[in-house]
Amino acid sequence: MKVVVAEYAGFCFGVRRIAEMIEEELAKGGELFALGEPIHNPIKVEEWKKRGLKLITRASELPEGAKVIVRAHGVPKEEWEVLEQKAGEIIDGTCPLVRKVYDRARYLVENGYFVVIAGDPSHPEVKGEMSYLPEGKYAVFSGKNGDVPDESFKRDRKKVGVVAQTTLSDKLLANVVTPLIGVEELLIFNTICYETHRRQNSAKELASRVDLMIVVGGKNSSNTSKLYSICREIVESNHVESAEELKEDWFAGKNVVGVTAGASTPDEVIDEVVRKIKSL
Amino acid sequence: MKVVVAEYAGFCFGVRRIAEMIEEELAKGGELFALGEPIHNPIKVEEWKKRGLKLITRASELPEGAKVIVRAHGVPKEEWEVLEQKAGEIIDGTCPLVRKVYDRARYLVENGYFVVIAGDPSHPEVKGEMSYLPEGKYAVFSGKNGDVPDESFKRDRKKVGVVAQTTLSDKLLANVVTPLIGVEELLIFNTICYETHRRQNSAKELASRVDLMIVVGGKNSSNTSKLYSICREIVESNHVESAEELKEDWFAGKNVVGVTAGASTPDEVIDEVVRKIKSL
Repeated sequence: MKVVVAEYAGFCFGVRRIAEMIEEELAKGGELFALGEPIHNPIKVEEWKKRGLKLITRASELPEGAKVIVRAHGVPKEEWEVLEQKAGEIIDGTCPLVRKVYDRARYLVENGYFVVIAGDPSHPEVKGEMSYLPEGKYAVFSGKNGDVPDESFKRDRKKVGVVAQTTLSDKLLANVVTPLIGVEELLIFNTICYETHRRQNSAKELASRVDLMIVVGGKNSSNTSKLYSICREIVESNHVESAEELKEDWFAGKNVVGVTAGASTPDEVIDEVVRKIKSL
Repeated sequence: MKVVVAEYAGFCFGVRRIAEMIEEELAKGGELFALGEPIHNPIKVEEWKKRGLKLITRASELPEGAKVIVRAHGVPKEEWEVLEQKAGEIIDGTCPLVRKVYDRARYLVENGYFVVIAGDPSHPEVKGEMSYLPEGKYAVFSGKNGDVPDESFKRDRKKVGVVAQTTLSDKLLANVVTPLIGVEELLIFNTICYETHRRQNSAKELASRVDLMIVVGGKNSSNTSKLYSICREIVESNHVESAEELKEDWFAGKNVVGVTAGASTPDEVIDEVVRKIKSL
C-alpha cells in the first residue's frame, strides 16, 4: 500500500511557536500553568502534563504569583485582566495571526463599522475576539445551517465590517458575507490563516488522487474537523487522533492512501500513523 | 381597464436637476450647447432642441467661448479638459450621486485598492468614472453573462475596492462582488442610487399584481431597460418611448395594467401613456 502525506500538514506557525515556548519553559523546570488547552491536541497536551504543565480552566484558579502561558487561540479580555492581577509572569502564546483579527476588529469599531465575526461563537478564538468588542457593536455568524445575516440585519446597518475566525473555510466566509452585499459600505478583512488555506488546498488536491484519506488531529480541533469534511466530500475518509485508532478493514482493497493532519498535530504523531498504515 | 402607475416612477433627482438647469437657460435665450444627450430621453431632448439646445458629441466641436451644459452622467476627464479650454461657461449637470461614485473610486485608488467598477463599460457614466482612474489600477465588470472577476484576478490582488454604476441592479452588483469574496481586503461601496432602488422595488411590487406592465422610457436608457427586464420576469411587459408606440392588441383581455417609467421620463410622457391606455 502506498502512503502519501499532504505537502502541507501538521503544526502551523502559531502552534509551533507556542509549543516551543512550552518546551523551553518545561526544560527550565519550575512550575508552569496553562490557561485552557494551549493547543487543540490531546496527545501533545497529555505529554506536557506528564512533564509538569498544569492546566487550569479559569484565570481565577491560578495561584498568586505563578507563571502562566496563554493559549494560541488567545483568552477573553476579562480572563486576561485576572491573569494580570494574579500571575507572577504571563507568557503570551496567542498566535500573532489571531492577534491580527483582534486588531482588525478594533479598527472596524473605531471607524464606525458594525462588526460581523464569521466564525463559531463557542470557539475560544472567537470568544476572545468578542470580549474585546463593545456590546451591541458586533454579531457572530457561523455560516452553517442558515446562520447568516438576514434582510432586516442588512436594512438596519449602513457600514458593516467583517473579520473571520482564522480557521474558517472559504465557503463559510462566503456564506456569511454574501447576504451582506448591498449595504452602503462593506469592508471585509479575510483573516483566514494562510496555513489553513494551504492545508485545505493541499488536502483537497491529495484527496482527489487517492483511494482513502486519513485525517490526523484532535477531535476538538476546528481546523482538523474542517480538513476531514473537505476530504470526505471527495473520497472515503477517516479522522483519527493517533495511530491506535486506525482500523485494518478501512484499508482493504485500497492501493493509495493519503494522510493529512491538523495544525496542532505534532510530526511524531503523523509519522506513527504513516508507519502503522504501511505495516498493515 | 384599470391603470395603476408605480409609486416611484419617472424623473429622478439628478435628471430633474439638470432638466431645470436647461429650462432656466433656454428661458434666458442665448445659445446653449450640450455635450452628449443631457438625459437619456429622446422625446425630451428633441423638444429642447426645437427650443434652441444644440447637441455636440465631442468637446472639440464646441465653438470658442460658447456656453455648454455637461450631461447628468458626467463626461470623461479628457473631454472636460477640452471644455475648460474652449467654453465661455460650463454648466455642470453631472448628477451629484454620479459625482460621489467618482469620489469613492478616487478614495479607493489613493488608499491602495485595485478598483472594480461594477457596470457597463460603454455607459457614459462608467466611461466618465474610468477616465478619472489611472491605467492599470481598475477593471470594469458588467456582471452579465459571466462577465465577472475570475480566480486568477482574485489571486493576483490583495486589496480590492468596488463601486457600482448608479443605475445597476442589486443582482448584477452581487454577481460582480461574490467572486471577489476571499481577497485579503475587500471594500465595497454600494453606489447604486436610492431612486433606482425605489423605482425597481416599486415596479417589482406593481408587476406582481397586474396583468400587464408598460415600461415608459428611452430605449437608450439603462435604468429603463433594467425596469423592463425586472417586470418581464414577473408578468407580460412592453417597453415604449411614448404613447404612440402602444399597440391595442397588447391590452386584449387585460383587466389591470401597471405603468412605470425610467428616471429620465418626463411626467407629461407618462400622463399621455396613461390617458391613451384608458381610452383603448
